[in-house]
Amino acid sequence: MSTVGETLRTLRERKPLVHNITNYVVMNETANALLALGALPVMAHAREEVEEMVGLAGALAINIGTLSPSWVDAMLAAAKAANERGIPVVLDPVGAGATTYRTETARRILDEVDVTVLRGNAGEVATLVGVSAEVRGVESIAAGGDPGELAREAARTLEVVASVTGPVDHVSDGEREVEVANGDAMLATVTGTGCMSTAITAAFLASSDDPLEAAAQALQAFGIAGEDAARGATGPGSFHVALYDALAALDPGTIDGRVR
Amino acid sequence: MSTVGETLRTLRERKPLVHNITNYVVMNETANALLALGALPVMAHAREEVEEMVGLAGALAINIGTLSPSWVDAMLAAAKAANERGIPVVLDPVGAGATTYRTETARRILDEVDVTVLRGNAGEVATLVGVSAEVRGVESIAAGGDPGELAREAARTLEVVASVTGPVDHVSDGEREVEVANGDAMLATVTGTGCMSTAITAAFLASSDDPLEAAAQALQAFGIAGEDAARGATGPGSFHVALYDALAALDPGTIDGRVR
Amino acid sequence: MSTVGETLRTLRERKPLVHNITNYVVMNETANALLALGALPVMAHAREEVEEMVGLAGALAINIGTLSPSWVDAMLAAAKAANERGIPVVLDPVGAGATTYRTETARRILDEVDVTVLRGNAGEVATLVGVSAEVRGVESIAAGGDPGELAREAARTLEVVASVTGPVDHVSDGEREVEVANGDAMLATVTGTGCMSTAITAAFLASSDDPLEAAAQALQAFGIAGEDAARGATGPGSFHVALYDALAALDPGTIDGRVR
Repeated sequence: MSTVGETLRTLRERKPLVHNITNYVVMNETANALLALGALPVMAHAREEVEEMVGLAGALAINIGTLSPSWVDAMLAAAKAANERGIPVVLDPVGAGATTYRTETARRILDEVDVTVLRGNAGEVATLVGVSAEVRGVESIAAGGDPGELAREAARTLEVVASVTGPVDHVSDGEREVEVANGDAMLATVTGTGCMSTAITAAFLASSDDPLEAAAQALQAFGIAGEDAARGATGPGSFHVALYDALAALDPGTIDGRVR
Repeated sequence: MSTVGETLRTLRERKPLVHNITNYVVMNETANALLALGALPVMAHAREEVEEMVGLAGALAINIGTLSPSWVDAMLAAAKAANERGIPVVLDPVGAGATTYRTETARRILDEVDVTVLRGNAGEVATLVGVSAEVRGVESIAAGGDPGELAREAARTLEVVASVTGPVDHVSDGEREVEVANGDAMLATVTGTGCMSTAITAAFLASSDDPLEAAAQALQAFGIAGEDAARGATGPGSFHVALYDALAALDPGTIDGRVR
Repeated sequence: MSTVGETLRTLRERKPLVHNITNYVVMNETANALLALGALPVMAHAREEVEEMVGLAGALAINIGTLSPSWVDAMLAAAKAANERGIPVVLDPVGAGATTYRTETARRILDEVDVTVLRGNAGEVATLVGVSAEVRGVESIAAGGDPGELAREAARTLEVVASVTGPVDHVSDGEREVEVANGDAMLATVTGTGCMSTAITAAFLASSDDPLEAAAQALQAFGIAGEDAARGATGPGSFHVALYDALAALDPGTIDGRVR
């Protein structure tokens, strides 16, 4: 058991390499969020190099936000190589439920590799456990039922740590559950903040031995940075800029007292 | 007939999903501009899912800024599916006139599908109507003649609403013409502002029944946001950030009085 | 012999088109850095158009940050076309040393085409001259020996102007060497600043007849912009925004006095 401050301190000392196979929309923003936090990002998607690259990494984040067949092949190859070496894998099933291709790709990844943490919104995660949900594009519109229960069910059914983000986040390994109330409504006004939380989850996994704890702490840290960024922001543009400043300014010495 | 304030109010209520098949350079910026305005962006380019995705959308924006054959196939498939369902399509022929591949791809799209609005700079649009023009990379250097006449001619020849942007924008359906003088020179100092105006045109099309009106109002709204962003900006970086804040702050209650 | 202020003045008058075949992570940022500086960026990677596009350009920048086979083919085709027309070529071997694919691709480009300037960090350049180095992801961790000597050796062995960036930059054509001490530690907190320096090197090459001088002046100008941006920045987000403002504000009349 570590606190978020302790894990953040480990992360900043270890500077883990986080290998991302992610969507075109958020590559820059994800890399900058990881750098600001204190991790080292790398983006690599070629089938020719993903297995070698993941071997250098502390964690792998795969994100299907703009997928195509050759990228899916690379995601599977990288995740299998990660599994063989005991490197944690986070999956962000962006848009699962919106199109068959996204739903089936997310399911295929969950079937073929060991995913350590599944980080998605309620609509995406509900889709993957077979609960009816409405996902419009990449936004969760409605997912019936209690999100805490959804996280527990997803964890049990899919054999992952389920990290279901929303106004309040619910993280579960099927037995334990952590709720995270940190965050700010402005996070929803900038594209890719969900993807950033996935990448940050990977960085915390690379800095911890407890996936449930790491997944929850990543959301705490990211949510607290969001709270800091919202102060003084005058809109989504200034909030976005302040978010990187806030991630870099997160203080391991005081962060524990801010967890909600 | 609606005012830009009325259409903006509809847009914010409807929160239309805008499906973008766009270039790598501006994906994040386009998504953030749409979110800031009040629409929902989604980026999807896989042949496997574009037809399904566009069926969920209020409008489709296709942009050839960084094209390759598989992307062109996806653009055509998505646009045909949009046509079948009566979903409006905006084409941004980025760099038409600079290379044969871009010119021919833009022509092919105009031939094979019904494009609702063609949004480009004078050099690109002139190229597509067969008028000699100079396009350097993706910038219009020179397009002989009057841009209003160019818009009317493009509208008639290509059977589109032609939206020709520049220091003053000219939007025409071949009969009517609207001039939009809103905007600021700083918009030309940030990459992708043309692409943003294309995406915003799509969002307005999804919120209106009159394509000419929607195309003109999109440029009015975007230009007014540009004017607001320029106030206080100290260079292209701070202008870029302020642009998202300004899009989010556009006020349907006062915007009509600012149209120029 | 020109000063950096003179070359910058030429650049702003000439507004050279810089053709970039670069990685997904930094496309927007690279384009905005070039625009802010006063050059015209274009991104084009399709085999169908790269030879035609490079023919319009003042310089070509190729960057292997997120490579795949079809992109490598396009890089080689574009660079060969550039060579035939005497257009300078800059290579950024992002991550050479981290994976075999990156190392071999960088070597292949150096073998098959005439690279005018090789711009990389010490680990990447050391890898390419066969000196042992540690590259983690895309970050140089350790490269034994003196970076000035590395630059000279790389220049001689690879027959390029070698531009080895780090806390102090070393630029050499094998005989002459220029050290550039301009810059700020905050440049390392934002992803893609190395890639920006590569693109800016291309813009300076397009504005000068002396590749060694142009490569060094590009780093001086970029470093000085970094110094200006660091003033008042409160973290990596605000620094990043200020960097574009600072590039646009670089003053050819005073920059010479600031070279370190």
